[in-house]
Amino acid sequence: MTYDPDNVFARILRGEIPSDRIYEDDEFIAFRDIAPAAPVHVVLIPRGEPPASVARLTAADAEWAGRMLVAAGEVARRAGVEESGYRVVFNCGRDAGQLVPHLHAHVLGGGDLGAVAGAG
Amino acid sequence: MTYDPDNVFARILRGEIPSDRIYEDDEFIAFRDIAPAAPVHVVLIPRGEPPASVARLTAADAEWAGRMLVAAGEVARRAGVEESGYRVVFNCGRDAGQLVPHLHAHVLGGGDLGAVAGAG
Repeated sequence: MTYDPDNVFARILRGEIPSDRIYEDDEFIAFRDIAPAAPVHVVLIPRGEPPASVARLTAADAEWAGRMLVAAGEVARRAGVEESGYRVVFNCGRDAGQLVPHLHAHVLGGGDLGAVAGAG
Repeated sequence: MTYDPDNVFARILRGEIPSDRIYEDDEFIAFRDIAPAAPVHVVLIPRGEPPASVARLTAADAEWAGRMLVAAGEVARRAGVEESGYRVVFNCGRDAGQLVPHLHAHVLGGGDLGAVAGAG
């Protein structure tokens, strides 16, 4: 999966598509998913043109990728699910149903999320 | 959720419980989940005594946490799911069903994983 500068997250970053942002800093923005899979469902993305997915991360990306995980915790705090619990999900490629080729994390919470997603 | 030095992952790290390791380096080990939720289900953990969950990460953890995400990609490569796709999941706290208070990532693949896990 290669980066597409016209992907929907790039367009959100450029302000071409509106989003309900609940967090932003110099490196990341987070907004509510328009098709929530849980009572709280926030998408966290890096600004700029990140790798398309976790599969494209290299050692040179480790620092900002780690800050993204720290930011996921902050997103959960702002969304009010730090105490009740939440799941941070990175989907990579076909079998995970990754739709947008711009590295992103889903932060899900607000109710019992059930077991880790399985297959078959 | 606070760290418990007798959690099952700490015991795996100490060699007190066997594990089917598919990856290890100086900082992390990855082993097959004993109750797999997908054809490929690997658990990736930091060595030592990491924070109990993503909720406990601070800015000081960013570098190694990022290397953990990079390692998740390597785990997927070794498990043969880089091309077919995979999901990297961090469960935090009650609603996510986090069972072990030692920060860990699930790497799932080997078939269609369905939609991101929801709630309710």
